[in-house]
Amino acid sequence: MDIADWRKQIDELDIRLVELLNRRAQAAREIGRLKRNTSMPIYEPDRERSIFENVRKANQGPLPDSELRQVYERIIDVMRNIQKHEIVPEDKPAEPRTEFDLELND
Amino acid sequence: MDIADWRKQIDELDIRLVELLNRRAQAAREIGRLKRNTSMPIYEPDRERSIFENVRKANQGPLPDSELRQVYERIIDVMRNIQKHEIVPEDKPAEPRTEFDLELND
Repeated sequence: MDIADWRKQIDELDIRLVELLNRRAQAAREIGRLKRNTSMPIYEPDRERSIFENVRKANQGPLPDSELRQVYERIIDVMRNIQKHEIVPEDKPAEPRTEFDLELND
Repeated sequence: MDIADWRKQIDELDIRLVELLNRRAQAAREIGRLKRNTSMPIYEPDRERSIFENVRKANQGPLPDSELRQVYERIIDVMRNIQKHEIVPEDKPAEPRTEFDLELND
């Protein structure tokens, strides 16, 4: 295989990576929504440790653990932002319903 | 689904992400090896632009393009290091064979 062939393979891998990253973001968003109704914090060091541990165990190389961890630190940062946005949305939250609404609709 | 279910899904996605990242690293390593025999530089801004473009096109959300780009900046950094290592290995390269070796073995 020449450089162009390997690059084609990388481009295909990237399309699959983007899909998985988006599925991961979707799950993080759902967790954010569930956290909104509880007192759970966005930053949970135990959970983050368990993610790194899972990833390290799954790593069969050639990526060294230290480099994989660097990628995952960024992934976790980005996912934390998504959760934060889900818990405190930038858009103004909907007004709580009034008693009048409750009477009309419930 | 509750938070534990979503986390289980994330852990499964991470195992697949780790595998794809390693396949990507393998391809980057092969490109590094091929570059070793040419005068091609490790840093190629046009190629990096084309990676970002491919990734942006593949992005169907919910990850915003800007956040996906942040993840990819880290991935590309890490892959560049792997290529650098492949082109200039840390281990001392084997000594070139002497004429004496050539006479004995060839």
